[in-house]
Amino acid sequence: MHGRHKGRVITAEDVARVIGVSQSTISRAFSNPESVSPATRARVLTAAQSLGYQPNVIARSLITRRTNIIAIVMANLTDPYYPQILDTLTQAIQARGRQTLLFIPPEDGTIDDTLASLLQYQVDAIIIASASLTSEMARVCAARQTPVLLFNRYVPGVRISAVSCDNVASGRDVAEFLHGSGHSRPAFVSGEHGATTNADRRAGFVETWHELGVRSCLQVEGGAYTFEAGFEAATIIARRKRRPDSIFFASDIMALGGIHALQQAGLRVPEDISVVGFDDVPLASWPSFNLTTVRQPLPEMAEAALDMLALDDKAGRRRRVTQFVPGTLVQRGTTRAR
Amino acid sequence: MHGRHKGRVITAEDVARVIGVSQSTISRAFSNPESVSPATRARVLTAAQSLGYQPNVIARSLITRRTNIIAIVMANLTDPYYPQILDTLTQAIQARGRQTLLFIPPEDGTIDDTLASLLQYQVDAIIIASASLTSEMARVCAARQTPVLLFNRYVPGVRISAVSCDNVASGRDVAEFLHGSGHSRPAFVSGEHGATTNADRRAGFVETWHELGVRSCLQVEGGAYTFEAGFEAATIIARRKRRPDSIFFASDIMALGGIHALQQAGLRVPEDISVVGFDDVPLASWPSFNLTTVRQPLPEMAEAALDMLALDDKAGRRRRVTQFVPGTLVQRGTTRAR
Repeated sequence: MHGRHKGRVITAEDVARVIGVSQSTISRAFSNPESVSPATRARVLTAAQSLGYQPNVIARSLITRRTNIIAIVMANLTDPYYPQILDTLTQAIQARGRQTLLFIPPEDGTIDDTLASLLQYQVDAIIIASASLTSEMARVCAARQTPVLLFNRYVPGVRISAVSCDNVASGRDVAEFLHGSGHSRPAFVSGEHGATTNADRRAGFVETWHELGVRSCLQVEGGAYTFEAGFEAATIIARRKRRPDSIFFASDIMALGGIHALQQAGLRVPEDISVVGFDDVPLASWPSFNLTTVRQPLPEMAEAALDMLALDDKAGRRRRVTQFVPGTLVQRGTTRAR
Repeated sequence: MHGRHKGRVITAEDVARVIGVSQSTISRAFSNPESVSPATRARVLTAAQSLGYQPNVIARSLITRRTNIIAIVMANLTDPYYPQILDTLTQAIQARGRQTLLFIPPEDGTIDDTLASLLQYQVDAIIIASASLTSEMARVCAARQTPVLLFNRYVPGVRISAVSCDNVASGRDVAEFLHGSGHSRPAFVSGEHGATTNADRRAGFVETWHELGVRSCLQVEGGAYTFEAGFEAATIIARRKRRPDSIFFASDIMALGGIHALQQAGLRVPEDISVVGFDDVPLASWPSFNLTTVRQPLPEMAEAALDMLALDDKAGRRRRVTQFVPGTLVQRGTTRAR
């Protein structure tokens, strides 16, 4: 579809002439946006819009077999960490001249129904940032020709590329920080059972305490990355005779629920007990919470993900790698200094 | 593109035979999903997937001029109310057999750049749930043939359909509830300047107090729908000699910032001062906050929006209407009873 201007059809040539670039630059700005600079792309889009030139990306996709659309599958928008992921990924996708097709598996439906819908669209790549990926879904994805990437977690034994925060290293950082500030009776509260995020944070944390000579680390199963799960786990911990002096929760939302339970039990945070979360959601820095936590490097993780999808390099897509990006401990008011 | 099964191309006829429906049902399940029941659609998609039948919706869109894709433009995923909107809208879109193309205007870019990208895709409709819609963007949208709808707010004087919570009526409900529970010195803290959400909540609230014989209602400009803006407005209010006995904040996040400021100033909520928010974000019902607020009827608003877009009725698209859906006051722990 071309625009019309004073009765004449507007072509890519017209746009090229107006802004003084070659016609092939106009073409590449639409069909292969990463091959031109963001500034040039912006000039082309602005000129195209003001002249009324509209390349039909849909028709073009039949020839190039490229739609410039990347699908994101995301199951949990209630936990504020997920909107942060979606925001960062979508902005990174748009910065590369592509767009996001969002799939949210319905609460009462299976992820297979979502995949069935998704397969109808010839997307260039699929990013799965879903909290609970079934191994069946992982197999379906691994078998597809369209590049698939797991964001935020990986599935051991499944050959799908993944990008994740370095959860083992961050678990170590938290243990070293707590030890260095005089704590000696640690506890870990886990989130969703079976998730690598959870297992890796725990592994780094518990191992480091062992290495530091602290043999016992209390471990409480939260069972889910929710406020309620954190609340319940902390209620159990608060009732113990020999209480820990610090708790590392597997997510910020769990830590916030935990702090509420500790305060209800008459304990002061951090005077009686220190609390560390994970994610650094926007809430964590609110003065009401002021939560010590691990900041996930979302912008770096998003860039790594898009690089790994090798959108313009079909040969590169064969590689299957899991990339771990280091997080940062952010010390705030819920942990006491030595 | 068709699937291959035992060396043979799988057609819509094969799928029809397997589940015992007509071939036209298969066709409609993909091209006009609302014309078949959700149960039938699910059966068709499942059978199509297991047989390896893949209709090419992209190729089909060139014939039908329908992509079954609806664009959502959303600027603010940090305020937890927006992910709630996105979740509800996307699930409603998917329940009608369509998909969501998500556009997030970059923080340093203009909304016009976003529109330029969006215009490349032949989406069936555009839903704008952006916090700050410029009047220029509104004009561009109004001039387009693709149906456009504003979600959550409207722009007075611009002929674009809109669906919004009945903010005037809810402002009235809050005033009547506070008056009925013995309050007599009200305050209103506004959010983003110029937004209809803000103006309507204030109008209903202030007018009702006047009608009830309370002539003075303190009004403080917050300036933005943020925790910080609520915090600053409440700090000013807490310092006043003659303090209000109740504050209605234009959003939940503002109210949470406000409560924090009031507590820092040594005031107890609700014993010294009652607080009401707006939205009913997930946080509002957390025991740490337990915020009295107005619940926006998001599922009803999403259904109304999709009905108003008249996706299967081109004649119906000419109508431009603004629909207001009533909200519900949710009484929790930040307001005192009589």
